[in-house]
Amino acid sequence: MIVRMFLNCSLQQGIKADLDSGQVNYLANVLRMKNGDKLAVFDGRSGEYEAITENLSRKSGSLRIGRKIRDFSPSPDIWLLFAPLKKDCTDMVIQKATELGAAKIIPVITKYTNNANIRIERYAAQAIEAAEQCRRLDVPQIEKPQTLDVMLKNFPADRTLFFLNEKGSKQDILETIKNHTGKAALLIGPEGGFSEDEIKKILAYPKVCDIFLGNRILRAETAALAGLVCWQAVNGDWKD
Amino acid sequence: MIVRMFLNCSLQQGIKADLDSGQVNYLANVLRMKNGDKLAVFDGRSGEYEAITENLSRKSGSLRIGRKIRDFSPSPDIWLLFAPLKKDCTDMVIQKATELGAAKIIPVITKYTNNANIRIERYAAQAIEAAEQCRRLDVPQIEKPQTLDVMLKNFPADRTLFFLNEKGSKQDILETIKNHTGKAALLIGPEGGFSEDEIKKILAYPKVCDIFLGNRILRAETAALAGLVCWQAVNGDWKD
Repeated sequence: MIVRMFLNCSLQQGIKADLDSGQVNYLANVLRMKNGDKLAVFDGRSGEYEAITENLSRKSGSLRIGRKIRDFSPSPDIWLLFAPLKKDCTDMVIQKATELGAAKIIPVITKYTNNANIRIERYAAQAIEAAEQCRRLDVPQIEKPQTLDVMLKNFPADRTLFFLNEKGSKQDILETIKNHTGKAALLIGPEGGFSEDEIKKILAYPKVCDIFLGNRILRAETAALAGLVCWQAVNGDWKD
Repeated sequence: MIVRMFLNCSLQQGIKADLDSGQVNYLANVLRMKNGDKLAVFDGRSGEYEAITENLSRKSGSLRIGRKIRDFSPSPDIWLLFAPLKKDCTDMVIQKATELGAAKIIPVITKYTNNANIRIERYAAQAIEAAEQCRRLDVPQIEKPQTLDVMLKNFPADRTLFFLNEKGSKQDILETIKNHTGKAALLIGPEGGFSEDEIKKILAYPKVCDIFLGNRILRAETAALAGLVCWQAVNGDWKD
């Protein structure tokens, strides 16, 4: 497997891209790459390019960008709105949501959310690492945490809000998704669920749509992944 | 949320069930329950019962089994055959596969499997814990590890083998599952994938069926969960 690296710049064949200290450490010290070694790089908007290490020492280095390997194509337009969980579970959500092709991830603060430990920089780093590994050409956008009220207030009118409502209707999830094509978001509550008051507010949103994931009680992180899987299989890019 | 506990005995209203030291520790020391406190118990075959703690000390105790709360219904007949992974990832597979209703979990040893750390007792304990939390009435059966050859040799002729084959056909996964109702198993390889030789052997099995989970490279544990999600949504018990 060739090494893939996300570069936060605008890629083009022939340019030189400087590496930051974390990237240098990874290539030179972790992978023990030498000058002239090859990797693949992507910038989230221009596709994937070959790159060759130059002037690589243990402290600094750069890449010479070579030919384009893959044209850019964005991930499907699905957002994940989730209430942050314990550290390990949040890490898992970010990593798996990236693999499962979420375009945007928004931490949502609800009444029962454990919000003691929301670290956006950590989430962003994990999303990049997961994007590198799963061969995505983009990286999910990690938004700042928003309260549920603010999120609902700003929620775009043209986007379906799939709501995992344990007290809601038990419609077939695949049929429900199939009947709501186009831009979508998936809203998953914290371990303690949403309050009655929160459920009312969510259901008052015009394009909201209950989804049902069976009678076993799924952990919040499992529910987030299950919702993304169903969406990708029905309206996403899992069809050849 | 009421506490749920799996008891490895045959439950019936009125009987006394002795607790083992781990169960006593959990109820008396972790949850600080007192005599006369209520919980829900299940045995994997008789449904769910109320139970009341009796003679509970920090070292021993028993439960008096009360009325039946829920009749037994087994989980749908889907098996997960997976190549054991690093410890954390295997833990995740066992926990999530239990939540997602796998009836049986078989660790399969393949050419590229990291089999240094297969601990069946640990898997079984995790399956029980996850079953308690997700309100299942049964616990997935955890089989002893089998080599791929032995697994294929013993694989029942009446069961579809859904095979996550990265080099296989890219048929729509939901259609594929829909076209193969009845007993099923899901086979997921290790991080390094299957060898060419292994793929040939698997494809020689008569009821094998490739499944496709998109072009992003999913980690093995993500693929296992995604496959179970799709199966439950199409042929499992996620319809009301």
